[in-house]
Amino acid sequence: MPQINRQWRIARRPDGRASVTDFEWREDPVPVPGAGQVLVRNLYLSLDPTNRPWMWAQDTYLPAQSLGDVMRGLAIGRVEQSDNPAFPVGCHVSGLLGWQDYAVFGPGARVVRLPDDASIPLTRHFGLFGHIGITAYFGVLDIGRAKAGETLLVSGAAGAVGSLAGQIGKITGCRVVGIAGTPEKCRWLVDELGFDAAIDYRREPVAERIDTLCPDGIDVYFDNVGGPLLETVIGRMKLRGRLALCGAISQYNKAGVADFDPGPRNLFELVARRLRMEGFLASDYAPRAREAIEALSKWHAEGRLQYRIHVIDGLEQAPAALDKLFDGTNEGKLIVRIG
Amino acid sequence: MPQINRQWRIARRPDGRASVTDFEWREDPVPVPGAGQVLVRNLYLSLDPTNRPWMWAQDTYLPAQSLGDVMRGLAIGRVEQSDNPAFPVGCHVSGLLGWQDYAVFGPGARVVRLPDDASIPLTRHFGLFGHIGITAYFGVLDIGRAKAGETLLVSGAAGAVGSLAGQIGKITGCRVVGIAGTPEKCRWLVDELGFDAAIDYRREPVAERIDTLCPDGIDVYFDNVGGPLLETVIGRMKLRGRLALCGAISQYNKAGVADFDPGPRNLFELVARRLRMEGFLASDYAPRAREAIEALSKWHAEGRLQYRIHVIDGLEQAPAALDKLFDGTNEGKLIVRIG
Repeated sequence: MPQINRQWRIARRPDGRASVTDFEWREDPVPVPGAGQVLVRNLYLSLDPTNRPWMWAQDTYLPAQSLGDVMRGLAIGRVEQSDNPAFPVGCHVSGLLGWQDYAVFGPGARVVRLPDDASIPLTRHFGLFGHIGITAYFGVLDIGRAKAGETLLVSGAAGAVGSLAGQIGKITGCRVVGIAGTPEKCRWLVDELGFDAAIDYRREPVAERIDTLCPDGIDVYFDNVGGPLLETVIGRMKLRGRLALCGAISQYNKAGVADFDPGPRNLFELVARRLRMEGFLASDYAPRAREAIEALSKWHAEGRLQYRIHVIDGLEQAPAALDKLFDGTNEGKLIVRIG
Repeated sequence: MPQINRQWRIARRPDGRASVTDFEWREDPVPVPGAGQVLVRNLYLSLDPTNRPWMWAQDTYLPAQSLGDVMRGLAIGRVEQSDNPAFPVGCHVSGLLGWQDYAVFGPGARVVRLPDDASIPLTRHFGLFGHIGITAYFGVLDIGRAKAGETLLVSGAAGAVGSLAGQIGKITGCRVVGIAGTPEKCRWLVDELGFDAAIDYRREPVAERIDTLCPDGIDVYFDNVGGPLLETVIGRMKLRGRLALCGAISQYNKAGVADFDPGPRNLFELVARRLRMEGFLASDYAPRAREAIEALSKWHAEGRLQYRIHVIDGLEQAPAALDKLFDGTNEGKLIVRIG
């Protein structure tokens, strides 16, 4: 265990894709917790597309970070010292503990204690039992209101959220079509996960493929990518279709929302076809998280839900690892093993 | 009563604003109803912004009309001949009976019989008791889910739908700000209808005025105009705000949806702020129309709801009258008196 607290801090706002030069590596003393505080040794760091907008100068759903801040990140750690009986030494916690070896948090911090169940791999709390599973579950069923017999289209379908969303659609009885960026990913979606079809957006004409694969239109669109694809999809939605906006990875390397591509010209179709478009975040569903976790864990135990993680070793790799989400080379939920 | 059936037919697709040269005046024999059919003498014609997109080559929520068709229009008429006991001679009906003196409809047509209550002006079935009232009522309360204490912003606020929507917002207990196109309209909204404030979009900087008038943001946006204003408003919505998309009059003089201005760049705010944007049509609420009509008629009787109509005499004036909706010179719900 290091005697120092290694950290990645934000050195500058990235111009386009973030690179290691946008971060500063710092080695500070391990922080000393004060009264009522808890010291955590971080073990795993979750890397998600949304980390990139967290580097904007503009607020997102979280306040903008300042240059010099330890990079914000969702981490799982083990409590090392504690002056809070709710978090005894040795328990595991999850929260925005940052890209660093050690974090200190006080009363009222949004840190949750994980169940003391050694049979559950810790990393699952980033996935099936964490923000990824909750996002996919409520996005498909609550925001998307997908029902048996409907057609669900998922963009970013080979990603951590998208691959679960499509499988939840299949379990619900939907016809599911995924959009992904390589032939291998498309094969994985169809052959391994049971998607009805997949579209390789880099190699196939997406609009024509949607027309062929969804000849009667789309009931539910689970959108992870945003950008110009949204206009293509809006034009192919069925009457009273629902668009669940989860993310916009195609736009995250811009400097901020004002720099995004123009939006869909055909928003009038929302009126003509009575469509509903709604954005959502997993954190809003915290009060209902148990419902998702119970369903997901049952389906997983029944072998109906596949989920893969991609672990990269070493905190020092975090900046390079983050970029894998944007060049599409991650294979499953991306996690950095810190400790 | 004319012995002929005067009609306006679509001569060509308008290039920009529709003018009389886009229509053809025809005088045909009065049609003879067949078995099971009903002959109606049209009395009033409703002119609504949505009539203009009905002239597109592209389908909207209704199929595109063909060149040569009698112009589609919502009309109220009196039954002259009938082979359908549900529509006896002398009763009044409302439906898409067209820009003409006479129409024939058969079984299954979407024509409704109006109540035999001579105390209700016939034209009210185009307004408070018709599609206008139903649109405003369900747009504010069902799609917008406006609640007491919230801030409601209405675009096209001096229009038939917008002026009702804002008043319904006030009755609900909202702070209501309207956007309209002349100082006179803005004064009418505030001084006569009780809006809290109004913005003259032609003479004032809209974004800054919204910031001043809605310093904490907007909970519900009732959108009649579409176009670039939507981006301005999205950037000023509160967390979990609702955008009720009713129409897009700023775009209707284009050739079709593909020709619209680019959409809002900042749709990612739907995710960040968990906004819901939903389109709707009055016709979807036909099963719940009674709920709206009862509330609106009670509020009207109590003097809490003002509504004005602008009647233009003569079917021959219909094309010129339609354009008043687009140059903003109508003063109230626009109606052509045919008979």
